[in-house]
Amino acid sequence: MENWSGIDETVKRWIGEAGENIRASFTHSLSIQSKSNPNDLVTNVDEETERFFIERIRTSFPSHRILGEEGQGDDVQSLDGVIWIIDPIDGTMNFVHQQRNFAISIGIYEDGIGQLGYIYDIVHDELYHAKKGQGAWMNDVKLDPLDPVPVEQAIVGINSTWLIQNRHFDQEKLIQLANDVRGTRSYGSAALELAYVASGRLSAYITMRNAPWDFAGGKMIVEEAGGVVSKITGDDIDMLSVNPVFAAAPGLHEDILNNYLK
Amino acid sequence: MENWSGIDETVKRWIGEAGENIRASFTHSLSIQSKSNPNDLVTNVDEETERFFIERIRTSFPSHRILGEEGQGDDVQSLDGVIWIIDPIDGTMNFVHQQRNFAISIGIYEDGIGQLGYIYDIVHDELYHAKKGQGAWMNDVKLDPLDPVPVEQAIVGINSTWLIQNRHFDQEKLIQLANDVRGTRSYGSAALELAYVASGRLSAYITMRNAPWDFAGGKMIVEEAGGVVSKITGDDIDMLSVNPVFAAAPGLHEDILNNYLK
Repeated sequence: MENWSGIDETVKRWIGEAGENIRASFTHSLSIQSKSNPNDLVTNVDEETERFFIERIRTSFPSHRILGEEGQGDDVQSLDGVIWIIDPIDGTMNFVHQQRNFAISIGIYEDGIGQLGYIYDIVHDELYHAKKGQGAWMNDVKLDPLDPVPVEQAIVGINSTWLIQNRHFDQEKLIQLANDVRGTRSYGSAALELAYVASGRLSAYITMRNAPWDFAGGKMIVEEAGGVVSKITGDDIDMLSVNPVFAAAPGLHEDILNNYLK
Repeated sequence: MENWSGIDETVKRWIGEAGENIRASFTHSLSIQSKSNPNDLVTNVDEETERFFIERIRTSFPSHRILGEEGQGDDVQSLDGVIWIIDPIDGTMNFVHQQRNFAISIGIYEDGIGQLGYIYDIVHDELYHAKKGQGAWMNDVKLDPLDPVPVEQAIVGINSTWLIQNRHFDQEKLIQLANDVRGTRSYGSAALELAYVASGRLSAYITMRNAPWDFAGGKMIVEEAGGVVSKITGDDIDMLSVNPVFAAAPGLHEDILNNYLK
């Protein structure tokens, strides 16, 4: 039996430390343009941050396994036991070009069930988090349960990539949706867009290609805030594969699924 | 002869005060969802903020004219003299749904020439501003002159509206561009997207329908940061009409214009 509230305290402390390290890596808030090779920076910070978590998890929780974007974790082929699913920097392109709109994302799953979820918007110091069965928070503020939203009042996070002819989904269905909603937005970080769905800043988020580390933290937080997360078909998300992810407020999820996506 | 640095000091003080008033109007950072009629709120704050500026301008600069989104200013039909072009809250949909990603935008023009420009991201306390011939700043940090950006490394702010068949522009040209760039984003505030172009967070911003209060502040700031702002045809912006606005880093502006938009 895991001590989830003890783990929660520990993770929050680690996330705070990792965030400070990342902030310290910014020598200057607007210096990105002058870097000769910005990809070097992002690789270093991504890998260092993943290593930061892996070393601490291995020491404190030696029986837990780790699935991380940078590939320094374990070769996870099943959902048995406790698995930490980590994206040290979700939104790497934003990190390089903007030094904002990126986040640390962590989901901790036990036998495939989400127990703890974290999305930390480092620059704005906003930690979205959730505990299974207890709800979701932004910093110390508990998120209100999401209300249903009519399609015509919805603001949907969707990248224009999916409204252009592509190999993954019929863009005509999504164009119809984009025409009917109040507005679309695109922030370039799956983790943050899921956090915005959880907090009602977006009514829905749709993408065709998310890896487990992109959605593991956010899926838990959206669900604990009363939202629904599925594949774009309505089927359950596969926690070990790339998925087309569709997250939305209750009611709106069903409406969009039945009237646009199917 | 106007005392532009005196006016600059005054505007910054007013913007700070207006920002505090707007922040005070948020009873709770995540309370928007529960409002029965969110449009009431935005109307009140928009109008109050415009009135805040108009009253002060009329008292301190009685010879200046005012063109404001909420229509409480003057009926401006020519660019003669000094004109303040004001959007009290640019990004009203974000204001209502997100309580972030909106800004106060002010451009001060003399005989059609931009003299001072301001975009204030209230929630993140970031004031982008420019003085004619002297450069652009974010808070106290002077913005580096923008470097040319190749198309394949560009991040472009463009709403999916313009990648879907629409009455204003051939979407196929923009789809080609969206396919070739590194990424697209959409934040839902013209003023902020222009501020991001000025600070290099976006390489370009394209929209088909911007009113003078949407771009008056941002145009000046982008230009003082070394970027280029024109209509989507490459023609000069008309400061008294709705325009299709295309702002970009130097070099990139010419490339996109010649290879995609024309």
